[in-house]
Amino acid sequence: MRPKLILYFFLFMTISVGYTQNYSGDETEINSILKNIEAFSQYVINADYGNLGAAYTEDAKIFPNNKEIISGREAIVDYWRLPEGTRITYHKIFPEEIKIIGDEAYDYGYYEGKTLKNDKESRWRGKYVIVWKKMEGQWKIYLDIWNRVAN
Amino acid sequence: MRPKLILYFFLFMTISVGYTQNYSGDETEINSILKNIEAFSQYVINADYGNLGAAYTEDAKIFPNNKEIISGREAIVDYWRLPEGTRITYHKIFPEEIKIIGDEAYDYGYYEGKTLKNDKESRWRGKYVIVWKKMEGQWKIYLDIWNRVAN
Repeated sequence: MRPKLILYFFLFMTISVGYTQNYSGDETEINSILKNIEAFSQYVINADYGNLGAAYTEDAKIFPNNKEIISGREAIVDYWRLPEGTRITYHKIFPEEIKIIGDEAYDYGYYEGKTLKNDKESRWRGKYVIVWKKMEGQWKIYLDIWNRVAN
Repeated sequence: MRPKLILYFFLFMTISVGYTQNYSGDETEINSILKNIEAFSQYVINADYGNLGAAYTEDAKIFPNNKEIISGREAIVDYWRLPEGTRITYHKIFPEEIKIIGDEAYDYGYYEGKTLKNDKESRWRGKYVIVWKKMEGQWKIYLDIWNRVAN
């Protein structure tokens, strides 16, 4: 039906962290998305707003809790910008499934992080769904929605 | 690139409610998803747990705030089951975009509703992202994540 879509389907349990990873799609593309997921965490930790913005499509939408949908790269970067005295010292994303369908993909899983605010550390954990789009050979985040998991 | 995918692209402003609708994909399929979205609200209002469960794929996942990911139709119905004395008297979904890609689709937008609990009414509003899968000719919800918009 979609002859161009070569399907690799590899399912493996990572016993050490106790979750299932289910990646479906061309292996090179999957690896490219996985690399972007890791880089995203690094941009958050580094407060690297240039690269954080570039991780999204121009017309991306994010869905933070208790807010309206935020649309467009500039508004999204504004949302991510941390106030003075606040740093995110740790950020990690654990994708449970990535499925590539042509030039789009969806991905869901968990994330966790640590915030340092005026020398006080808080930890948080949540879950997310992302819709990716391949734009000029690069996988970019188009839809990004998440909410917390109770500690 | 995907010759089987006939693209209708209709973008129109609904001035009365002030939001944009952007539907992309075969018109019959779009209408089928729109019908399912409307029916879903009706199942919620009617506390029709049979049809509510059947709106999801067997292996669907929902992402309620402050909880782990809930997986599987049975667990999802358990989540939706309302306690004695509580009714949802109004539920409406406003999809802003629906994009069909083969046998899958993503969809995002807003929802709103009213809960009646011990004769006290509360109103709520939120936003969502859904990933749909076409299973045996029927569009079912595979991923369902949402969070509130502050009142």
